[in-house]
Amino acid sequence: MSPAEITAYLHANIPLTQAMGVEVESSDVDALVLRAPLEPNHNHLGTAFGGSLSAIATLAAYGVVWLALGDGRAHVVVKDTSMRFRRPVRSDIRAVCRLPEEETMRIIREEFSQKGRARLHLRAVIEDAGDPAVEFEGTFVATR
Amino acid sequence: MSPAEITAYLHANIPLTQAMGVEVESSDVDALVLRAPLEPNHNHLGTAFGGSLSAIATLAAYGVVWLALGDGRAHVVVKDTSMRFRRPVRSDIRAVCRLPEEETMRIIREEFSQKGRARLHLRAVIEDAGDPAVEFEGTFVATR
Repeated sequence: MSPAEITAYLHANIPLTQAMGVEVESSDVDALVLRAPLEPNHNHLGTAFGGSLSAIATLAAYGVVWLALGDGRAHVVVKDTSMRFRRPVRSDIRAVCRLPEEETMRIIREEFSQKGRARLHLRAVIEDAGDPAVEFEGTFVATR
Repeated sequence: MSPAEITAYLHANIPLTQAMGVEVESSDVDALVLRAPLEPNHNHLGTAFGGSLSAIATLAAYGVVWLALGDGRAHVVVKDTSMRFRRPVRSDIRAVCRLPEEETMRIIREEFSQKGRARLHLRAVIEDAGDPAVEFEGTFVATR
């Protein structure tokens, strides 16, 4: 799926992503990059609302699980997340989630293929004007 | 401020809360309770989107900090959060954040009043049809 196709899928199936203006900037073998403008995601201080930052980071990691498994029937749920807000985001939001290394992915795909279940631990970073501002970690479980 | 006044403030100042349909159900000395309908917050599986759950839990805790300090000039930021998603939310979302005990609040208010800075650790729970489904913990810092 192209970035435009993933964006259209998100807007059609998860209405909040449309309200947030989330768009897929790029999606390749290395990473999934999401963007959202500050305007619909600001708080009362004019910086990005912590809830929007949580939502876009969760979404980026969720998308990586889905893309990494390469199985449209995979049922993915988030089990736990943790975030560190190092400084406020004052510009448009950019969330980057890298795919696990190829050897890790091979083991995960094998587990998923054999047992119909896999657990992935992912990290994502939200940047503000190119600098990391928020760190995200999450555990996801995929079943078939 | 009444629940309706807090709801209006949120919608006017944090646009995502309006897109999510967040409303303050109650706000008293014990707890802040927020609600949001499932419809604008569903994911592709028809259950509540993890990002919406993160956003409403963060907002409930944030609101408690603000109400607990009783100082409209307080500048509140979230420092870190962690969440455990125990089971999917299939009905309207209800987030409950209790205020710290009165003795803890007294110490926090004193610290805030003397040093112009206070740190609060809060827990919130998201219920699905009356049962706890998601647990939230967060650290917030208030400055004047």
